[in-house]
Amino acid sequence: MADSLSALPFEDIRTLLERLPAADQAAAAAVRARDARLTKPPGSLGRLESIAEWLAAWQGRERPAVTRPLVAVFAANHGVAERGVSAYPQSVTRQMVQNFAVGGAAINQLCKAYDLGLKVFELALDFPTPDVAAEDAFDEQGCTATIAYGMEAIAGGIDLLCLGEMGIANTTVAAAVYHALYGGSADLWVGRGTGVDDAGLRRKADAVAAAVARLADERDPLEILRRIGGREIAAMVGAILSARMERVPVIVDGFVTTAAAAILHAMRPEAIQHCLFAHRSAESAHGAVLDRLGAEPLLDFGMRLGEGTGAAIAAGIVRAAAAVHGGMATFEEAGVADRT
Amino acid sequence: MADSLSALPFEDIRTLLERLPAADQAAAAAVRARDARLTKPPGSLGRLESIAEWLAAWQGRERPAVTRPLVAVFAANHGVAERGVSAYPQSVTRQMVQNFAVGGAAINQLCKAYDLGLKVFELALDFPTPDVAAEDAFDEQGCTATIAYGMEAIAGGIDLLCLGEMGIANTTVAAAVYHALYGGSADLWVGRGTGVDDAGLRRKADAVAAAVARLADERDPLEILRRIGGREIAAMVGAILSARMERVPVIVDGFVTTAAAAILHAMRPEAIQHCLFAHRSAESAHGAVLDRLGAEPLLDFGMRLGEGTGAAIAAGIVRAAAAVHGGMATFEEAGVADRT
Repeated sequence: MADSLSALPFEDIRTLLERLPAADQAAAAAVRARDARLTKPPGSLGRLESIAEWLAAWQGRERPAVTRPLVAVFAANHGVAERGVSAYPQSVTRQMVQNFAVGGAAINQLCKAYDLGLKVFELALDFPTPDVAAEDAFDEQGCTATIAYGMEAIAGGIDLLCLGEMGIANTTVAAAVYHALYGGSADLWVGRGTGVDDAGLRRKADAVAAAVARLADERDPLEILRRIGGREIAAMVGAILSARMERVPVIVDGFVTTAAAAILHAMRPEAIQHCLFAHRSAESAHGAVLDRLGAEPLLDFGMRLGEGTGAAIAAGIVRAAAAVHGGMATFEEAGVADRT
Repeated sequence: MADSLSALPFEDIRTLLERLPAADQAAAAAVRARDARLTKPPGSLGRLESIAEWLAAWQGRERPAVTRPLVAVFAANHGVAERGVSAYPQSVTRQMVQNFAVGGAAINQLCKAYDLGLKVFELALDFPTPDVAAEDAFDEQGCTATIAYGMEAIAGGIDLLCLGEMGIANTTVAAAVYHALYGGSADLWVGRGTGVDDAGLRRKADAVAAAVARLADERDPLEILRRIGGREIAAMVGAILSARMERVPVIVDGFVTTAAAAILHAMRPEAIQHCLFAHRSAESAHGAVLDRLGAEPLLDFGMRLGEGTGAAIAAGIVRAAAAVHGGMATFEEAGVADRT
């Protein structure tokens, strides 16, 4: 899929957005029908029931299952880091990618604990995108190629995709995307990220304001991505899109990952119906973004690490929801009396 | 432990409450110190960090771990069921216990999915406690014996105890306990349980009001348990107590299980510090109870099944939190630059 798209201009991505597969309503109905016969009061498993139905609708099968889940972590560097918007030096992006490779990061432990596959996608770490406060991140060709690269995330027959990221200064880039999409003042959309101090937070808001000022009246989400986005966000746009085409449900991690979903949502709200939002990040603006997407995050743990860590925990719950639905006995099978 | 206590009167349980082991502050401090050196921004794992610290403090070890987790489900029957307070007939309690035995219930699937042990404790299902709206549930000897029986839940060297229950009409009994402990009107504490209709809800509130009216000015939590409680609640009081004595952290499930914690909390608030509350149940009054206990539930999934289902999901998260803390590399080990 990536090869055929890597040279395509934005217009072809727009066309793809018009051709999204819809939810499998028959599969969803089959889950509801089976659920009504399981040995429990109707509705008593709450969110676990709606997760099973969502999984069936977007996997397109009556018995949803999670047997090959993958956490895909997209790593990128950002020229805007030079403005002192992060508590950590840019070199940490590569160091953390190495930490992923040797199994020392938080996401490694979660993938082990929940038996999830892990792939890390390095996006030209030695060549940060230009500082978006002053220059465009991509030309159209580069942006499309990165989106196409992200489409590779679903290779290998996976049946659940967890999206995460790593990239020093990428909460600045994500905040710029939100500011461009949703307006307001730059202050509304910036937070402390990995823990920047007050002066850094001020520089971060200034960088976001400058990036969005460059856009003038540009409202096209793909142009916003191209001009003030970043590589991991572009790649995750591709991952979400290809997952939809191939009927792989997606779990979106936190503040930065949600920016990819927000771009697609701004193009066409239905484009992210196959996405579940793992958690409300401690990054201050994340809740406001989730509200705009109409998303009800699964967890609210005050997490703000990225790496797909929230999505991995959510994947454990989604797999359990499928196992409960598929494994429970019906009233008839168990010889349990149904309601009086 | 059960044998030595089975003949003890309430006074000995009160004495036990005065001798509770405190949190291991050194273990908690060791977790905080290690956490500060792990390859992530400080605080960025939010609730996962506080869970690791809580686990260390109550397991009494510097490297908390969950290697032998158990879900203990206490099943009991209740005379008050005859008043038509539930959507299901009382026979369902035993049928569901048989369903647990053959692996057909929701909790079986969750224990499989999260690799948790499961033990079901049957509490004389053929002999329901008397209808608490009209008669006392226990004499002191019977109540203490049931508390002592519940202490068996921690046998076998487990390192995390998830508490759950099954028992037609037991949300009525739990509501009566809350009404007795916290006052207000009976309506405040009753909800639809497994899905009772409006007329049943009215009967439920009436039963709760009648039970509490019998208590007159009785304020002693153990007397409240004895007069208007039930066997599963008494047994879970014992389980929580013995877990504390043996340094086994406890995950409390939903509305009914929380009643056991509420009784201990009313006797001595510190008695439930080793308990984590899994979720906010959809049973309407649970949130108000959790507020009174100062508990912040981990999940809010609109669940109201019982069986320990919420606690099992929480156990998956608690184990992951321990794995993240124990498995992550430090900045030095990984060669990652710390904050600038």
